[in-house]
Amino acid sequence: MPIEPASSVITKPENMRSPDLDLLFEPRSLAVIGASERLTGGGGLLLKSIMANNFRGKVYPINPSAPEIAGLKAYPRLADVPGEIDLAVIAIPAKAVPGSIRECRDKGVKFAVVHSSGFGESGADGRRMELEMAEIAAHGGPRIVGGNCMGIYCPASALNTIVTYPAFGHDPGPIGFVGQSGWGTEQYTVFGLEKGLRFSRVVSIGNQCDLSIEDLIEYFAVDPQTKVISGYVEGLKRPREFLELAGRITRKKPVVLWKGGRNEKSARASSSHTGSLATNQTVFEAALKQTGVVTANGLGNMLIVSLALSCPVLPKGNRVGLVVNSGGAGIALTDTMESTDLKLAVFPDQVRRELREYLGTLTPIPPAVDNPVDVGWITTWGSSVPYFKCLEIVLNHCDMAVLMCFLPLDQAVMEGLKEIRDRFGKPIVVIPGHPLTQNDGMNLLSRNGIPSYSFPEEAVQGLAALWQYSKWKNNL
Amino acid sequence: MPIEPASSVITKPENMRSPDLDLLFEPRSLAVIGASERLTGGGGLLLKSIMANNFRGKVYPINPSAPEIAGLKAYPRLADVPGEIDLAVIAIPAKAVPGSIRECRDKGVKFAVVHSSGFGESGADGRRMELEMAEIAAHGGPRIVGGNCMGIYCPASALNTIVTYPAFGHDPGPIGFVGQSGWGTEQYTVFGLEKGLRFSRVVSIGNQCDLSIEDLIEYFAVDPQTKVISGYVEGLKRPREFLELAGRITRKKPVVLWKGGRNEKSARASSSHTGSLATNQTVFEAALKQTGVVTANGLGNMLIVSLALSCPVLPKGNRVGLVVNSGGAGIALTDTMESTDLKLAVFPDQVRRELREYLGTLTPIPPAVDNPVDVGWITTWGSSVPYFKCLEIVLNHCDMAVLMCFLPLDQAVMEGLKEIRDRFGKPIVVIPGHPLTQNDGMNLLSRNGIPSYSFPEEAVQGLAALWQYSKWKNNL
Repeated sequence: MPIEPASSVITKPENMRSPDLDLLFEPRSLAVIGASERLTGGGGLLLKSIMANNFRGKVYPINPSAPEIAGLKAYPRLADVPGEIDLAVIAIPAKAVPGSIRECRDKGVKFAVVHSSGFGESGADGRRMELEMAEIAAHGGPRIVGGNCMGIYCPASALNTIVTYPAFGHDPGPIGFVGQSGWGTEQYTVFGLEKGLRFSRVVSIGNQCDLSIEDLIEYFAVDPQTKVISGYVEGLKRPREFLELAGRITRKKPVVLWKGGRNEKSARASSSHTGSLATNQTVFEAALKQTGVVTANGLGNMLIVSLALSCPVLPKGNRVGLVVNSGGAGIALTDTMESTDLKLAVFPDQVRRELREYLGTLTPIPPAVDNPVDVGWITTWGSSVPYFKCLEIVLNHCDMAVLMCFLPLDQAVMEGLKEIRDRFGKPIVVIPGHPLTQNDGMNLLSRNGIPSYSFPEEAVQGLAALWQYSKWKNNL
Repeated sequence: MPIEPASSVITKPENMRSPDLDLLFEPRSLAVIGASERLTGGGGLLLKSIMANNFRGKVYPINPSAPEIAGLKAYPRLADVPGEIDLAVIAIPAKAVPGSIRECRDKGVKFAVVHSSGFGESGADGRRMELEMAEIAAHGGPRIVGGNCMGIYCPASALNTIVTYPAFGHDPGPIGFVGQSGWGTEQYTVFGLEKGLRFSRVVSIGNQCDLSIEDLIEYFAVDPQTKVISGYVEGLKRPREFLELAGRITRKKPVVLWKGGRNEKSARASSSHTGSLATNQTVFEAALKQTGVVTANGLGNMLIVSLALSCPVLPKGNRVGLVVNSGGAGIALTDTMESTDLKLAVFPDQVRRELREYLGTLTPIPPAVDNPVDVGWITTWGSSVPYFKCLEIVLNHCDMAVLMCFLPLDQAVMEGLKEIRDRFGKPIVVIPGHPLTQNDGMNLLSRNGIPSYSFPEEAVQGLAALWQYSKWKNNL
């Protein structure tokens, strides 16, 4: 039996919309409710993760019996904490959570992140508790993330309550993410960081008993630290409003959405997962196309597209130039392009002449100067000069470029490519010849807005997403 | 102007077909023609790679002037080498290669791998040299791989002339690969080894002046060390024969093909790449579907499918059981399955009861026992018992399973999964909860026939390919 989402029952007062969530992500102080020394329970792991990440604010462990936890003075109840508390991180059994949210209200706590599970996903009793919590939030209580969530991550405040990987780093970036699956949130963040994505804020939104995906996206839209909005969504609570919102936001910032629960069976699984009703898919996906949102069809694709949208420059047209160091890579790129809206740029005679003349000085073997341009083999090994020179010739006659190169991707290469990208105002993506030895270099390029990929098909998918968004934003 | 492939002119004598290529891959002795101490040229790099890989046979450097190279006695000419030579590895300027092939014939060399470029891919002069070499091969000369190729790799003989990555290891496996792009061959092999693919033989076939893709596939078909045949193909020289051959082989061994040059533009690029004519794509791809060959649409997909086909067990039906440790992963798996021929298994009441009873002993939160089965959170951390137990219950009612688990993938887990796989005779694929920390474990499982993937969509693509092949092979 499908479970009614809380928000279809509670009508939110108008003044609660577009919430300012700055103190959720950058709290000056936080309390861990359920803190303990034991690392077998959620509270212990959470406190450990918060400390290991060197959270910049004050931390108050709350525990009814321990006077000190992990070297910090602990308090039996929230009310005993002397100072103000911006955020409560809650990891106690579900049935005790509504009472705890009431204590938060009484203490004036601004936000609560409820890690505990056992709410809407478990049945009617859990759903009743969600309603109770939402009521408290709506009447002077803290705004709530969760329950049944995996936590939040914000590099600017060094806050990480996504416990499994404590070492997320403090390097901020353009991506704001909200995910309706703890697993999805964690995987996207962990793989993303590895591939060079950098985040402004990450939220595992859980059951959305109070704060919803729509709230987070609305916040990301006005948050100056967030340049790209990304999300994993199963069921939306206010789909109509979401679509209207998305259509407005995408005129300013790109939004990429990975939609889970796309068919009847997975929608059923989704209902037992976060207790939310799946939206009518066909209708919703058709409508989504009209909003400029870029959709992703899985975790891998989501990472590819997010990396592309982190590029600060948008293509003004769909002509792609390929500068490669391997015939096979050029063919793979051209093959994949066929299934997208991208076009292999056609070079005028004069460009081919210019390339032939230049490359003729480097290699005895007649070079391939039609698009894809093959820079040639051994002669170019390790030197960025021929690649950069060909890129410059090519970028004069296309809207974006793929560079496939046998180069160590170091600081100088990154800066050189950035300079070319900004001088031409055209996106460049990179595939290294030896990806496995270039993980660090790919990460360096990617986090500096030169998206780097292992496989040709990924580079093409990335550029196609960038073009799709540019077309929408610039009415091309 | 398209270039005529050599083999459309030369008619091969019937007795040259189905060549025995054992000594190409496991030569007792080899000569490096163009060997040198310098690592700037191909010959120097090749010799270094052969030595660094501890090739098991004798090595004779051939160089007109140096008496000793890399600590080995060198010979001015092939004729000066005292013993027999099975293989000549050639890296000298193209125009000197036909003469060198003649010397190979005179010395009785059985095979030549021509790394030199500057043949058919460079124009009419190069094509004439290819014809000349093919004529020598057809009349008592060595059978030739190349020119314009990247080399061969065979763990059984510790032979590796694919110079860029010398450390391929000597761990043999089921995959025989032939690739018409040096880049494609290298990337497939390098990424494959990283992901747990293991190889019997790998060949970068280059311009196919003599030995062709068809020859290699015919050899792999009868080679007992090769259990799975994989290839990257741009243009085939004898497409009709290839199709006939493929249809026969796939009744015994799986064949996976990544076809490059699928559209007019990339086919044009392909012609300047290895000098081969692209086959009429539409006709060819339609015909390929009738042969039981599994096709891949890019490098990433090729790796996913190859990993799946390395599984020694084939599914007898298309019902998939999902045992997961995250609702989101279950939804992602179910979503992706929708676009394949796979079916989410429907469990009878009794199975759900059995799962509920078992999982009820582990977790206070009512578990999801419909397919996907959610094993539950903290209680299962680190222990394989609940996963294995659920897999066993589930495998009684489906044809294959995906396990998504938060487990360190160690030797015991690998052996446990292998035992279950073999007892049920049903494929199991694995997605670890923390893929980035489980690279070694995923590799361990994959090379033992439990294909392991980072993303749900990859696991589903893998199983779909396995089912596609099984359906063909077993007439299901």
